[in-house]
Amino acid sequence: MTGAGETTLPTLVAEFTARKPAALARALSIIENHRADCDALLAALHPRLGRARRVGITGPPGAGKSTLAMRLAARWRSDGLTVGIVAVDPTSPFTGGALLGDRIRMEAVALDPGIFIRSMATRGALGGLAATTREAADVLDAYGFDRVLIETVGVGQSELDIARTADTSVVVLVPESGDSIQTMKAGLMEIADLFVVNKADRPGADRLRQELELMLGLRLGLVYKNVPSHHRVDLRPLNPARAARRAAAEPADAGGRWTPPVLAAVAATGEGIDALASALDAHFDYLGRSGALRVRRRQRLRERVVDAAERRVRSRLWENGAMQTWLESQLDALEAGALTPLAVAEALLARSAARLAESSTERSPDDHRS
Amino acid sequence: MTGAGETTLPTLVAEFTARKPAALARALSIIENHRADCDALLAALHPRLGRARRVGITGPPGAGKSTLAMRLAARWRSDGLTVGIVAVDPTSPFTGGALLGDRIRMEAVALDPGIFIRSMATRGALGGLAATTREAADVLDAYGFDRVLIETVGVGQSELDIARTADTSVVVLVPESGDSIQTMKAGLMEIADLFVVNKADRPGADRLRQELELMLGLRLGLVYKNVPSHHRVDLRPLNPARAARRAAAEPADAGGRWTPPVLAAVAATGEGIDALASALDAHFDYLGRSGALRVRRRQRLRERVVDAAERRVRSRLWENGAMQTWLESQLDALEAGALTPLAVAEALLARSAARLAESSTERSPDDHRS
Repeated sequence: MTGAGETTLPTLVAEFTARKPAALARALSIIENHRADCDALLAALHPRLGRARRVGITGPPGAGKSTLAMRLAARWRSDGLTVGIVAVDPTSPFTGGALLGDRIRMEAVALDPGIFIRSMATRGALGGLAATTREAADVLDAYGFDRVLIETVGVGQSELDIARTADTSVVVLVPESGDSIQTMKAGLMEIADLFVVNKADRPGADRLRQELELMLGLRLGLVYKNVPSHHRVDLRPLNPARAARRAAAEPADAGGRWTPPVLAAVAATGEGIDALASALDAHFDYLGRSGALRVRRRQRLRERVVDAAERRVRSRLWENGAMQTWLESQLDALEAGALTPLAVAEALLARSAARLAESSTERSPDDHRS
Repeated sequence: MTGAGETTLPTLVAEFTARKPAALARALSIIENHRADCDALLAALHPRLGRARRVGITGPPGAGKSTLAMRLAARWRSDGLTVGIVAVDPTSPFTGGALLGDRIRMEAVALDPGIFIRSMATRGALGGLAATTREAADVLDAYGFDRVLIETVGVGQSELDIARTADTSVVVLVPESGDSIQTMKAGLMEIADLFVVNKADRPGADRLRQELELMLGLRLGLVYKNVPSHHRVDLRPLNPARAARRAAAEPADAGGRWTPPVLAAVAATGEGIDALASALDAHFDYLGRSGALRVRRRQRLRERVVDAAERRVRSRLWENGAMQTWLESQLDALEAGALTPLAVAEALLARSAARLAESSTERSPDDHRS
């Protein structure tokens, strides 16, 4: 993006700290491409973390998440706040997946120097989309943005994992999403701190709000009777164990637990955005008051360590291609059934360990920062 | 599922080989729960792999994937073939996410002893949904099913990864999915060997077919002119590098590359299912003739080794909880910014290595199969 040649990490960090946009773009590229120095970069930025509020916006394709994100960003800008946006939705206008009209609207927002938008390429399992997204949010936080918005499409498990990296998760639904969305709600219920019924001027919006409120009432243990059967929906969370763990881990406020409000909005016209911004402030206040913010952020720290450790272990295994080459040489025997994948994996680990033991006497522990 | 107590792995394998349904269910549970003996189980089943044809069915929520899968299974049954189904769609009727009527229809199919249906719980990133699904398909293959169907919702990256574990990937779309689906097509184009326009009796079906055929023509390098602009769609694959790698890795047939056909179906009535079954046979013939089947299956073997190796490395790291406990003790310093996640990760790896070196003198290499 900068067009400049390679700079050293200390130079990059210095330019980043001086808030040079080119350094920001470069730092994000290092993260996204999992370059060798990404761990060292994250370590250098670590002391600068924790100032930004992170808001996740999740929902099905076509729910208007990007438009809502834009409106929210514009609203925050009018309060003098700066906003960094990470979009990991392959169907998002930010990532080029949308119609031209949407893209033009996005670009108008992108011209504001107080807003920075980065779309993440979706990556394979090895890259770890949730980890990369959290790290990109870290970079935006360290750079000094007041708000960091993370936009994800909320269908797959990895997308739900991404949403959990935010301080506050907003789930956006639309009336016309219909039955297919109906069945997605259980998964989204796990992560929602706030619901937005977008395109609230369309038919079915009131019914969707009522349904969501019923579901929330149920989650809170309210009585579920005298309810027309067509309003009864399946409430099982996708992963009940995780939902329970999360509920148990988060302290109740003095005034009790947080009840996710159900807001109506028409993102295209800006209707409902002020109420959304207020609700986000209220949720952040709750997080601070109740101690839940600390719980969530400590969980993020825990995950950072786990990711860094596992990434290091993996890169040790596959670095320099020797193990890949050896693996290729075993494919014929695997194909013939003469060897099992487990046997090959164990032989591979033994070879790797031997190689590491050999090379560890030759190199310094800081070699990986080259 | 069986209600029986713990059996040893050799007993389980013996019962599995004798085709006892309880052993099948148990084997799948071991895989799904990532139990300690899952690697050993997969190793025991490895020589039995490769007989089944694996067909992936992917598409957006509400496209009718499950109904299509059922119809296809019934069609194969009428040819005397047995069918194993793995559903990893949280919105699938197989996983309980659907309306009651759908579930009842599913149960009718499930009563046929020649059909076995297993719905996978969606798992976190650590579990590895794509790996678990491939392993479940391995188990069904080893058990002796002639066809293995893998149903996934095609939105997130992990779902696309799952689809790549099949020999043949069917992408199901519906006319009324509208713009949001429009923007998903690029991702689905990467993996489709066959398109099905389902609910083809509804308005817009012909237009969707034409659009898909245009996209395919473009992919094949046909000229894209004299096309009304509303028919021009964004064709960039989600991950061009991967799409190119895959195209390069797969040999062309004597008669050229495979051109994904676009079929019409009304799964609810069974219309179009015979044509789909024939197209699947034709694709499998092509895979065999061109050598592409071997390329795809070798790629699966490679991934099995990588998964087994990385899983082993991870489980060594976290087994017995000692490292988790130590990590908890570092959280305060991390939170204060006195330590970085990378520094904690490296200290953790050093501790783990020391612990392993210590214990490796005390235990035999086969301990993990306990």
